[in-house]
Amino acid sequence: MTECKTAQKKVGYLGPRGTFSEEIALSFYRGVEGCFTPYPSISSVIMAVDSGEVAEGIVPVENSLEGSVNVTLDTLAHEANLFVIKEMVKPIRHNLIVKPGTKHINVICSHAQALAQCRHYLDKHYPGTDRVEVESTAAAAYKVASGAKNYAAIGSLRSAEIYGLDVLDQDIQDNSNNATRFLVLSKEPVSAAGVKSKTSIVCQINGEKAGALYSILGEFAKRGVNLTKIESRPSRGGFGLYVFFFDLEGSWEDEQVAHALNAVKAESLWFKNLGSYPINTVE
Amino acid sequence: MTECKTAQKKVGYLGPRGTFSEEIALSFYRGVEGCFTPYPSISSVIMAVDSGEVAEGIVPVENSLEGSVNVTLDTLAHEANLFVIKEMVKPIRHNLIVKPGTKHINVICSHAQALAQCRHYLDKHYPGTDRVEVESTAAAAYKVASGAKNYAAIGSLRSAEIYGLDVLDQDIQDNSNNATRFLVLSKEPVSAAGVKSKTSIVCQINGEKAGALYSILGEFAKRGVNLTKIESRPSRGGFGLYVFFFDLEGSWEDEQVAHALNAVKAESLWFKNLGSYPINTVE
Repeated sequence: MTECKTAQKKVGYLGPRGTFSEEIALSFYRGVEGCFTPYPSISSVIMAVDSGEVAEGIVPVENSLEGSVNVTLDTLAHEANLFVIKEMVKPIRHNLIVKPGTKHINVICSHAQALAQCRHYLDKHYPGTDRVEVESTAAAAYKVASGAKNYAAIGSLRSAEIYGLDVLDQDIQDNSNNATRFLVLSKEPVSAAGVKSKTSIVCQINGEKAGALYSILGEFAKRGVNLTKIESRPSRGGFGLYVFFFDLEGSWEDEQVAHALNAVKAESLWFKNLGSYPINTVE
Repeated sequence: MTECKTAQKKVGYLGPRGTFSEEIALSFYRGVEGCFTPYPSISSVIMAVDSGEVAEGIVPVENSLEGSVNVTLDTLAHEANLFVIKEMVKPIRHNLIVKPGTKHINVICSHAQALAQCRHYLDKHYPGTDRVEVESTAAAAYKVASGAKNYAAIGSLRSAEIYGLDVLDQDIQDNSNNATRFLVLSKEPVSAAGVKSKTSIVCQINGEKAGALYSILGEFAKRGVNLTKIESRPSRGGFGLYVFFFDLEGSWEDEQVAHALNAVKAESLWFKNLGSYPINTVE
């Protein structure tokens, strides 16, 4: 990591170099004097923003095929106090990449989601081959490049280029609707007034009370606030106890949204505002 | 895989021998002439039931700390047409196991999650000892049994028994809320009339229509049908389109449940009944 200049904004992303997060970072901060720091895991990116080590962090939150990135949701709910200031959706294309000269593949390594997104391809073309999970697609490319024998990685064309690897097969994802949504996180919320925006919240509702979720949804419905996503995660207190993440259209600065959120807050055991931010346009 | 006798019920589970899935299989089929077949992945267990290769299959569906097992939900929604005939919740208990005669432990190996779940125990009793990640707790037991010198594994009592290992210490997990819920799947539904039961369904609702989920929940709420779980997964048609899994109290054979489900079915783009089955008692 090189020293950042004073005027530069420090930005953390899931490294190493060559990850989709890095591509998103370069695209988002195009024209900005950014100083980019790779972190070894999603939770370490989030906690670096929380501790003030970097000003902003970029993390994946959801994939169109595999669903939510659990560590992102769990860390935002239970460990950090941050705001989403931007979302970006990036189409994901996977490739099978190897060290030049590789004849046999005994192990295929990648991020767990990438392995899952190519499951049918791997079952068909590499049945019985071990699949090893590493921290990121770029970490897999790095592992292959640094000489893990008979290994292949699943990763981006950019990671193959960065690490000097051959591309054996392109676009191996099972479904062409494969896209990942990234969030830019900060300790300070932004104003999303006057633009088409979205708001994210997380809350724990009373699981013992029948109809508690129904009542919460009613607070949105009766004010005409549209939900774009609802996701449950274990509360970590045992089976049947969940926290709920909601994404909804509009900003805290809109009157109806503010009323709905205040009502939801009043009905929740705990509640966290994750911020209002402009709705993404696909990159 | 040994040949099954004609009278035996063929049952598939997530292998290799010694996994928690195998323990669940042995516990569920106690006293039944079962013929058990390990499969290398969760989706292959489910598809073996779907194709009739085995009569029943056992798969994990949810962990109390980590949440849903996505591959189980997605395969049930999109690829197989099966019914849940039983659920079982198994507390996850870890044990320190070694080859008989082991005097010193230099390395402790297990699945990454098992190592993490015993971190405080290991820090206290084995500070400075190397920790090595392998594919499963059963694979760790196998590694120790096949002679890795001065190795200990973290695994189940059953894996110690299968691989002829000594149990050095029991119940070494740090968090007692750790439990996994398993489903037994079949091509034929069972009757859950007259017992305390649960019903699972999956449906896709009209994401374009504001309040569609609220309306679905209303069908349950107004008939006093309690939901025990709600989970969204990507529909695979692009962002913002989800299928919803609901677990609810009662059976299709109960009048109020049947009415609610018929109403939900009528409001859904597609709907799948995953069966009614007795509510688990923890094993």
